[in-house]
Amino acid sequence: MKILIVGLGMIGASYAKALTDKGYEVYGVTRTQESINKAKDWKIIKDGGIDASKFIPLVDLIVIGLYPKDIVDFINKYNHLFKENQVITDVAGVKNHIEEIQAISKCEFIGSHPMAGSEKSGIDAIKPEIFRGANFLITPRNNSERAISMVSEIANAMGFGKITIMTPEYHDEVISFTSQLTHAIAVSLVNSDTDENTPSHTGDSYRELTRIAMINERLWSELFLSNKNNLIKQIDKFTEQLELLKNTLVNDDKEQLEKLMISSCEKRKRFLK
Amino acid sequence: MKILIVGLGMIGASYAKALTDKGYEVYGVTRTQESINKAKDWKIIKDGGIDASKFIPLVDLIVIGLYPKDIVDFINKYNHLFKENQVITDVAGVKNHIEEIQAISKCEFIGSHPMAGSEKSGIDAIKPEIFRGANFLITPRNNSERAISMVSEIANAMGFGKITIMTPEYHDEVISFTSQLTHAIAVSLVNSDTDENTPSHTGDSYRELTRIAMINERLWSELFLSNKNNLIKQIDKFTEQLELLKNTLVNDDKEQLEKLMISSCEKRKRFLK
Repeated sequence: MKILIVGLGMIGASYAKALTDKGYEVYGVTRTQESINKAKDWKIIKDGGIDASKFIPLVDLIVIGLYPKDIVDFINKYNHLFKENQVITDVAGVKNHIEEIQAISKCEFIGSHPMAGSEKSGIDAIKPEIFRGANFLITPRNNSERAISMVSEIANAMGFGKITIMTPEYHDEVISFTSQLTHAIAVSLVNSDTDENTPSHTGDSYRELTRIAMINERLWSELFLSNKNNLIKQIDKFTEQLELLKNTLVNDDKEQLEKLMISSCEKRKRFLK
Repeated sequence: MKILIVGLGMIGASYAKALTDKGYEVYGVTRTQESINKAKDWKIIKDGGIDASKFIPLVDLIVIGLYPKDIVDFINKYNHLFKENQVITDVAGVKNHIEEIQAISKCEFIGSHPMAGSEKSGIDAIKPEIFRGANFLITPRNNSERAISMVSEIANAMGFGKITIMTPEYHDEVISFTSQLTHAIAVSLVNSDTDENTPSHTGDSYRELTRIAMINERLWSELFLSNKNNLIKQIDKFTEQLELLKNTLVNDDKEQLEKLMISSCEKRKRFLK
């Protein structure tokens, strides 16, 4: 399988390296020639450039590593070059754009989402190790078995630990909890800090919990707003639980407080298996 | 300096190992002979037992690694053995018991708090590496320079990165934000999960954020309740921020949402320096 990666940011570049290392023929397209030069120097792509026209005809699979709203633009721009047997996938954190994309694309589009990332962005943040053992979600909508298996193949090749297939709608629900809510919490926690000296007072739990408060506001505001109904629901559910816990304090209800802690402990231990 | 560690749990045992490795003469007292035997086998104490009577006269500094409410019991039980020039410190996560302890103790008591821990407990969770570079808080109340410098000395010896001296009242405020609120959030986040399959859908951010939801309910319910006024205030401040963020979603206010993210990003970057 020959692959074109569109967008050599943190995720795109990590895909390129992981797939090149596994012997795939990988091409790259991105906004700046500087990043293309780096990708060539590092030997994570066979060839590449800032214009995709030359590379689209060479490949079987196109992975679009752009911001969700830029996917449509890319497809509109290059649609005339796509061949029917080519497959396109993305890496985007929301999947409510799939119908729109499929309506315009001349070749088959299938959504997928690597559940690994970094608070850093750009090609210099390349880190394919984060894929090892991570979750990978595929969100078919009227897709062929062939497209599903092409995407599964690269996920396996990159070392992802568990591949789950789900509808785009369920994906967006799931992601509003496991990814977007956690980012909303981290942002709010850091913003509620009014003490200059906090860095001298923290333990590792605060640092771990707030790492993702270093957030790319352009990408994440887009992700949040395009999935706002799900995310608002999750914020409400979470706030309800925090309110329950607060009430055990207000009422000095040690028994109920311990129950909440025992419950979270049991539930969280599922992740250790 | 000769040191007695009371309570060879995760923290006490890690103190014992870190201090023994630095050449201090360390004794240990804990509830079970089994743990004493382990501590001796591992050579993290010179000697120890389940009764402190024999060891108290041997040492300059006593570190009480027990739950906050058990500190008073320990001091009451052994007060008749304390000598005036001995110093006692603790490791407890709240410091509102200091006046009560100082009122009864025959020797000098000074509060301190290592800002490092684990979701695991007991001697088998021993892990002195977590102290390396971590924050350490000392909370004097009418204490001597000698007591402050004895506690600073062991914190330095154990590899803590930054020692901060503050009042017990400020400590409890600080800790309600950096430690208790983060645990309350993690517990509530995990408890708000209603999907059986979440472990297949998470990225590293959810896993990092919820590690501390595996919480020792006996210890933490005590810590939360004894510091409830501070913690309730922090929960309210945090909830206000999360509500602000939610409102940007409700109002489709991308500009304001991006501002919140830029702010959290800037604030969190202070930790990288």
